[in-house]
Amino acid sequence: MPRVFLAHPPELGQTIWVDGDEGHHFVRVLRARIGEQVAVVGSGVACLARIVEMDKQAGAFALLPERVLPSHESRVPVYLIQGLAKGDKIDSIIQQATEIGVAGFLLLETERSVARVEPRRAEAKLTRWRRVAREAAAQAQRDVIPSVDLAVTMVDAARWLQSRSVGSPFLLDEAETSHGLRAAVAAVRKREDKAAMAVVVGPEGGWSDAERREWARACDAVPVTLGPRILRTETAGPAAVAAILYELDELGG
Amino acid sequence: MPRVFLAHPPELGQTIWVDGDEGHHFVRVLRARIGEQVAVVGSGVACLARIVEMDKQAGAFALLPERVLPSHESRVPVYLIQGLAKGDKIDSIIQQATEIGVAGFLLLETERSVARVEPRRAEAKLTRWRRVAREAAAQAQRDVIPSVDLAVTMVDAARWLQSRSVGSPFLLDEAETSHGLRAAVAAVRKREDKAAMAVVVGPEGGWSDAERREWARACDAVPVTLGPRILRTETAGPAAVAAILYELDELGG
Repeated sequence: MPRVFLAHPPELGQTIWVDGDEGHHFVRVLRARIGEQVAVVGSGVACLARIVEMDKQAGAFALLPERVLPSHESRVPVYLIQGLAKGDKIDSIIQQATEIGVAGFLLLETERSVARVEPRRAEAKLTRWRRVAREAAAQAQRDVIPSVDLAVTMVDAARWLQSRSVGSPFLLDEAETSHGLRAAVAAVRKREDKAAMAVVVGPEGGWSDAERREWARACDAVPVTLGPRILRTETAGPAAVAAILYELDELGG
Repeated sequence: MPRVFLAHPPELGQTIWVDGDEGHHFVRVLRARIGEQVAVVGSGVACLARIVEMDKQAGAFALLPERVLPSHESRVPVYLIQGLAKGDKIDSIIQQATEIGVAGFLLLETERSVARVEPRRAEAKLTRWRRVAREAAAQAQRDVIPSVDLAVTMVDAARWLQSRSVGSPFLLDEAETSHGLRAAVAAVRKREDKAAMAVVVGPEGGWSDAERREWARACDAVPVTLGPRILRTETAGPAAVAAILYELDELGG
């Protein structure tokens, strides 16, 4: 069923007009018709709605939410902080982790990031990545579009984590050989059962020692291992998020 | 550390000559030198070895295994049966699931597979997919190269599963809403703690009802859900394998 994303939660019995890109997409591309059912979602609330009016000229249509749908979202938000990587790897990471159920992304320039984002191109990049997240959220039938942000310093990352109430993010680190993801998740849940979590994945070249110290100092990050096999940066994030959501009974658990 | 794959387990103190593609790769491409350390692996046994002789002319070199390395493999084999999907999706699935730790792949033509493998092209396709598995295994520091096979009927799939001692594979199915992966894994482990497992992922269009019945009848497959979010075929397999290996304490557990 097609999905319409709103900036606010839909309310039962309250007609909603949709225009702009989304209106155009439904009216011109999907050729939606009056009477058709769609899901309308906003701020994590999803409703089954019916199309009750169309303005083909303007590329707009009106929806009437008829009943609330069960949530498709994890009760515990799990974030992904990803070191900037080359080419379209970031697209693929955002797409897969959005399907799996991540709450939001922070893309971070790191010491060994080969890819950099020039300040004047940052907005264009973010627009592109947010479009990837939106399309993946629609396809995966998410009730929220994961947020996508960009940071260039560890101080920004620390502030970002704090604003999302994440303590002790899990720093995936090849140098860590004993402390596993399970123990790290258990430690966070012991402090607070529904606490938000974040997993931090380095770029292709991994972390420098200075960065490891800085993660511990600035963000209270705990190094964790995913075991003895070496996962590429584009596989590690989605795999770690899948494992965490599974552990939390939020991925077929 | 570079990894040399053998068809047989390496033995301590027994010199091994490596030629062919692998010899060429180390001598000509990596420009390996006498005295250099490499990992040599075969049939799940990994040893630290030293290069003791080189024949640059022939593109060959000799290795002396010096000590056994800790295993990088899951104690329980987890297989992935993947419905044939379009384009290079299969490459990406093989690459990611190999890194995560899958024991082997069966690619299966299904009713809704848009991609088909013409019989005369099957060998070429398999060669390509096996190369992807080999390269991913080397990069991920695996001790085995996952096997890659192709089947066109459910009877072939049933035989393949039987030959690998897999009972009740887990059929990922959007139509299943309550029976999760965790319960399915627990049921297999209850019967036999170290039993091999397999997860079955449909192509882009999912399963037909006839196929669902056939999976249950021919292979004793159990339908499972990964939760309410819809994962694309190229995300579902790696995510499910990550969750299973995590559950088995084989992925940072």
